[in-house]
Amino acid sequence: MCQLLGMNCNTPTDIVFSFEGFRRRAGLTDCHCDGFGIAFFEGKGIRVFRDNQAAHSSPIADCVKQYHIKSLNVIAHIRKATQGEVNIENTHPFIRELWGQNWVFAHNGNLTVYPDLTHSLYQPIGSTDSEAAFCYMMSELKTRFAQKPSEDELFTSMQDITHSLCQTGTFNFILSNGEWMIAHCTTHLHYLTRKAPFGKAQRIDDDGVIDFNDYAKEGDRVTIITTFPLTKDEIWTKMECGGFVFFKEGEKIAEIIGVPTQAIDDGTLGYQKCA
Amino acid sequence: MCQLLGMNCNTPTDIVFSFEGFRRRAGLTDCHCDGFGIAFFEGKGIRVFRDNQAAHSSPIADCVKQYHIKSLNVIAHIRKATQGEVNIENTHPFIRELWGQNWVFAHNGNLTVYPDLTHSLYQPIGSTDSEAAFCYMMSELKTRFAQKPSEDELFTSMQDITHSLCQTGTFNFILSNGEWMIAHCTTHLHYLTRKAPFGKAQRIDDDGVIDFNDYAKEGDRVTIITTFPLTKDEIWTKMECGGFVFFKEGEKIAEIIGVPTQAIDDGTLGYQKCA
Repeated sequence: MCQLLGMNCNTPTDIVFSFEGFRRRAGLTDCHCDGFGIAFFEGKGIRVFRDNQAAHSSPIADCVKQYHIKSLNVIAHIRKATQGEVNIENTHPFIRELWGQNWVFAHNGNLTVYPDLTHSLYQPIGSTDSEAAFCYMMSELKTRFAQKPSEDELFTSMQDITHSLCQTGTFNFILSNGEWMIAHCTTHLHYLTRKAPFGKAQRIDDDGVIDFNDYAKEGDRVTIITTFPLTKDEIWTKMECGGFVFFKEGEKIAEIIGVPTQAIDDGTLGYQKCA
Repeated sequence: MCQLLGMNCNTPTDIVFSFEGFRRRAGLTDCHCDGFGIAFFEGKGIRVFRDNQAAHSSPIADCVKQYHIKSLNVIAHIRKATQGEVNIENTHPFIRELWGQNWVFAHNGNLTVYPDLTHSLYQPIGSTDSEAAFCYMMSELKTRFAQKPSEDELFTSMQDITHSLCQTGTFNFILSNGEWMIAHCTTHLHYLTRKAPFGKAQRIDDDGVIDFNDYAKEGDRVTIITTFPLTKDEIWTKMECGGFVFFKEGEKIAEIIGVPTQAIDDGTLGYQKCA
């Protein structure tokens, strides 16, 4: 399995405080050491950094830390390989262009069967179930909508496409086109939104502390989505199995409630178990 | 205009010696300061670094220098904007997936008219003529060949598609799918191949010196393609207008000879002038 980190905001925000805790799970506080990737939207463009080394010690991750890139939408992933070799083409997040926008996707889970993509509009470059699932999602969307649809139409279609993929395994994912961020949970995914009044937070993975009052302005809104909570003293919402959340400008604007993940919380079961 | 740098080899090679001269042209020895990008193939995957700051002073370019990534195919670009704002989505190289491979493209020149891409399979994310031309090339190839064709078929099609794009301006480019590298010239593009017996080279832009005997093995073959020569004491081949060269494993395996660029060498004329 792997771990996911996403950030969706209404003002360009530096993810380094969260990323520095998250990357410790790639070799220090957990064992997701089979490469990492992080993609920062900047306008319609993206900066992406990836490495097949463990994030905790990767010089590419050090570069991310040093540069303090500010972004409205960021997706990061630390990998513990289940399918596909440990190499660059199999590192998340995966990226494709759809309707003239970058779409960025990262997955935690394991799918045992997925559609034949030989003649698909989008084809996987590597050998992971994750990239195949992403290519299937992109191909389905482009086939259903020649032009970019409304967000309501898109969110409805995404649920439908995701449901079919979930039939064969665990499918926690975060997806963004730079305008919004969608999170889907089958086993483990948590989120919180930071907004005024801001407080302090202490990281779980190394006790690093931040006072958001030193950085945030009144009106700032920052949502963090992650596999397991990154801080001790904030209230994280645990998503439920089959749950979908649609975030925009740091705010939850739509949600599909699943069933409590405690019922299936052995870390191996997928969406099909809670249908 | 901009400047291009490509490397195609038969053994994973570090491009830092060339890149360190090249990046000085982004603010020190020349004025291509409107962002830069560099993409390294690693297997079928790519690592890509881009910034909207000038390459000579960009901390992202410093990260590239420090990491000494070895690759069989690398494409880099320093930008002097002619069309499109200075931002991340308009930095080269541009990347798309075609037939399950990453295709990487960088352009130097200016195209005044290009096809309507509203209903195209590939659509531009930014606002440059370069990305539009690349999307047109990708869409044409995918429409002509449902599956990946032979290299001969591909090279023939590329000439045809390029010829139609060249009708409206200057179109020097480098393109790679990680297996080969194609270079096309309308005004300025040079290349050389380093192989045994290896010697020394001195950079033009800062007098940096290297002895390739300290790094290369017998049998290594490294081709460097660039807008203007990077070293003083090596023999660079100047490509001609309309010239196409197809490199694989560091070797020139096919070539279309154009007409001498001296005939049109005012830096503004395009392919249509030498047909």
